[in-house]
Amino acid sequence: MENRGKQNETPTTITIKGILSLLIANTEAKDTNKKVISLGIGDPTVYTCYRTTSNVQEAVVDALRSNKFNGYAPTVGLPQTRNAIAQYLSRDLPEELSPDDVYISAGCTQAIETTLSILARPGANILVPKPGFPIYGLCAAFRNLEVRHYDLLPEKGWEVDLTSVEALADQDTVAIVIINPGNPCGNVYSSNHLEEVAETAKRLRSIVIADEVYGHLVFGSTPFVPMATFASIAPVITLGSLSKRYLVPGWRLGWLVLSDPNGIFKNLKFVERLKKYCDLNGGPATFIQAAVPTIIEQTDEAFFRKTNNMLRHTVDICCEKVEEIPCITCPYKPEGSMAVMLKVDFSMLKDISDDIDFCFKLAKEENVIILPGIAVGLKDWLRITFAAEPTSVIEALERLKSFCRRYSNVQNGH
Amino acid sequence: MENRGKQNETPTTITIKGILSLLIANTEAKDTNKKVISLGIGDPTVYTCYRTTSNVQEAVVDALRSNKFNGYAPTVGLPQTRNAIAQYLSRDLPEELSPDDVYISAGCTQAIETTLSILARPGANILVPKPGFPIYGLCAAFRNLEVRHYDLLPEKGWEVDLTSVEALADQDTVAIVIINPGNPCGNVYSSNHLEEVAETAKRLRSIVIADEVYGHLVFGSTPFVPMATFASIAPVITLGSLSKRYLVPGWRLGWLVLSDPNGIFKNLKFVERLKKYCDLNGGPATFIQAAVPTIIEQTDEAFFRKTNNMLRHTVDICCEKVEEIPCITCPYKPEGSMAVMLKVDFSMLKDISDDIDFCFKLAKEENVIILPGIAVGLKDWLRITFAAEPTSVIEALERLKSFCRRYSNVQNGH
Repeated sequence: MENRGKQNETPTTITIKGILSLLIANTEAKDTNKKVISLGIGDPTVYTCYRTTSNVQEAVVDALRSNKFNGYAPTVGLPQTRNAIAQYLSRDLPEELSPDDVYISAGCTQAIETTLSILARPGANILVPKPGFPIYGLCAAFRNLEVRHYDLLPEKGWEVDLTSVEALADQDTVAIVIINPGNPCGNVYSSNHLEEVAETAKRLRSIVIADEVYGHLVFGSTPFVPMATFASIAPVITLGSLSKRYLVPGWRLGWLVLSDPNGIFKNLKFVERLKKYCDLNGGPATFIQAAVPTIIEQTDEAFFRKTNNMLRHTVDICCEKVEEIPCITCPYKPEGSMAVMLKVDFSMLKDISDDIDFCFKLAKEENVIILPGIAVGLKDWLRITFAAEPTSVIEALERLKSFCRRYSNVQNGH
Repeated sequence: MENRGKQNETPTTITIKGILSLLIANTEAKDTNKKVISLGIGDPTVYTCYRTTSNVQEAVVDALRSNKFNGYAPTVGLPQTRNAIAQYLSRDLPEELSPDDVYISAGCTQAIETTLSILARPGANILVPKPGFPIYGLCAAFRNLEVRHYDLLPEKGWEVDLTSVEALADQDTVAIVIINPGNPCGNVYSSNHLEEVAETAKRLRSIVIADEVYGHLVFGSTPFVPMATFASIAPVITLGSLSKRYLVPGWRLGWLVLSDPNGIFKNLKFVERLKKYCDLNGGPATFIQAAVPTIIEQTDEAFFRKTNNMLRHTVDICCEKVEEIPCITCPYKPEGSMAVMLKVDFSMLKDISDDIDFCFKLAKEENVIILPGIAVGLKDWLRITFAAEPTSVIEALERLKSFCRRYSNVQNGH
């Protein structure tokens, strides 16, 4: 009965896109000379400084015009696409991936949905980070998979609280999700920490789902290490896409990759189930898949460096500006991804009840969109996406500053 | 417990793509001068006579090169795309659709998956046609939704056996699926029959899922009438895509449309649930979505006529040739879609046990790929996709004829 109830209800999970559209609707752009600035979502493509290269685009044009790729692709993906992704990811791994380990998906979102759907069974649970990415919770709710939130530790660079992981896990725990580089925290985990995560998963007889959609988007002192480096300790499902690194989130070209040197997935009949499930997936357009080998071959490091330098620059601006705002603190300066978590001290503000109230008033009064922390699991925090033009980040933070001054109960507000 | 078992197992549903890949692997192309001819799948894009127009392709190129559509689209689809599809479908409907009724999906497959997923609840069942399209069964199995097969009547142009529908339905029946124009039967339902289906659904307090992926691909005496014409009798979810009519199945641009003048879906909180679910869907590439308004505006009737004339021609060839094969009969000559069902009289054949054995031997000995009926729910039948070049259809049917002669136990075989 409970079960029935559960499945009939619409999940109440707040989604980022859902709350952002409400915030945007709440701006009063027309009544003001302040243009709307959104630091709400990890999609920088509106800014010319975050534009993909023309050769990446032309590779897709060529595939389309060849007339060879208007038909169906195999539901697991085109062989040449699986092969290109296998080689691309193998560069950073101790063991070469086989194309058969790679499943092409319609963006990382579909890779998440597929992974959770094939792991779901009555009573099963997954461990997801808090703060984290709400799609995991939404998907789990639809699949009737229990979600248990382990903490990330701000004072330790948002590392996984392994003690809370051990405390939460039981024999029905099917996977531990880690997001690295981190959304929403901008964390980049050290090789040692990832190895600890793998050892923990091994002890718990669990697999690791490594969400690496921000893979290689790093600009601090810690290099990006793929979780699959430690797949010999515990099996890893790596989720990724072209979206962030190639600045084409709207192309919906993602992947799900199995790293399983000990053949644990095969024993679980996981692979068989995954292949069947792929027949239900729309998957990405065949001609976009066909362009992937060229895209990966022809994109030079300079393009990636430019993006990472830009992100380093905007996160610097962000953190400097935040220091000028008494009621907001940044416990950790991001070394990767496109987002940072900021803590608000509401005792220093008047007439603002919580993070949602904060963001709606900010949108209404300043035409600045940022995400309330509750949307990623941390009430009274804020998530700022710094993947924007420097001038926009400066302007947005200036408005945030004057907004906070206006509501301050410490200094003189208005 | 049962439930647990059920969800842990991989569904055993035979998928068309699955069995076709086995058949293709079974051909001996190398050892023969007969090139492999596949009449197995509804993807004619390998044949130059089934090529989309350059303006359709260039609309996508322009959208891509504009640099405006590399970012995320709303998960329900771009507003201009929803609007274009609403207008496109409204041409044939008594009531104008609103863009808000339209949800853009990664092909019709994702529209099917989404529909079944939001209808699924413990104990619920859906009624699907036999023969039918196996994705419904596979999706239902993953979603733990019970599938009940109603019969299509070959002697009545594969009409829905409304008596068997009434007999199968109960208070847990959430939807009746109809596929029109029909895959695998090539049926095109009359307006009267569709109205009967709607009246039946109304009596059963069920909704109708109208799979119209082959919409407008008709070339007989019966015009195509959308099921939503009768949405005032029973609410309709229409599923479709650009795939078949625009000859771009690999573009993954589909839709799910709610026709519900009586607001029944809203009462069921169906819309709310659907919107949430869309956040899990990868969806089609934003720049392909952005091209849809131009694609629909700029494609002239001549292109559609050409395709339908070609299909009429190849189905003529197919049915004439089949008449020359004693052990195979065609109970109904298709008036739409790309497929025909043929009955095999195995009493007239020796050394062939069933339709699967038939198709594997045919693939091995003649390099001709056709689908065993069991894959669409009818054992000892065959499904032929006639959406191929006329010369290939003639050649394939000639080989089928000599294959049947060879195995005939009536005339002298080899």
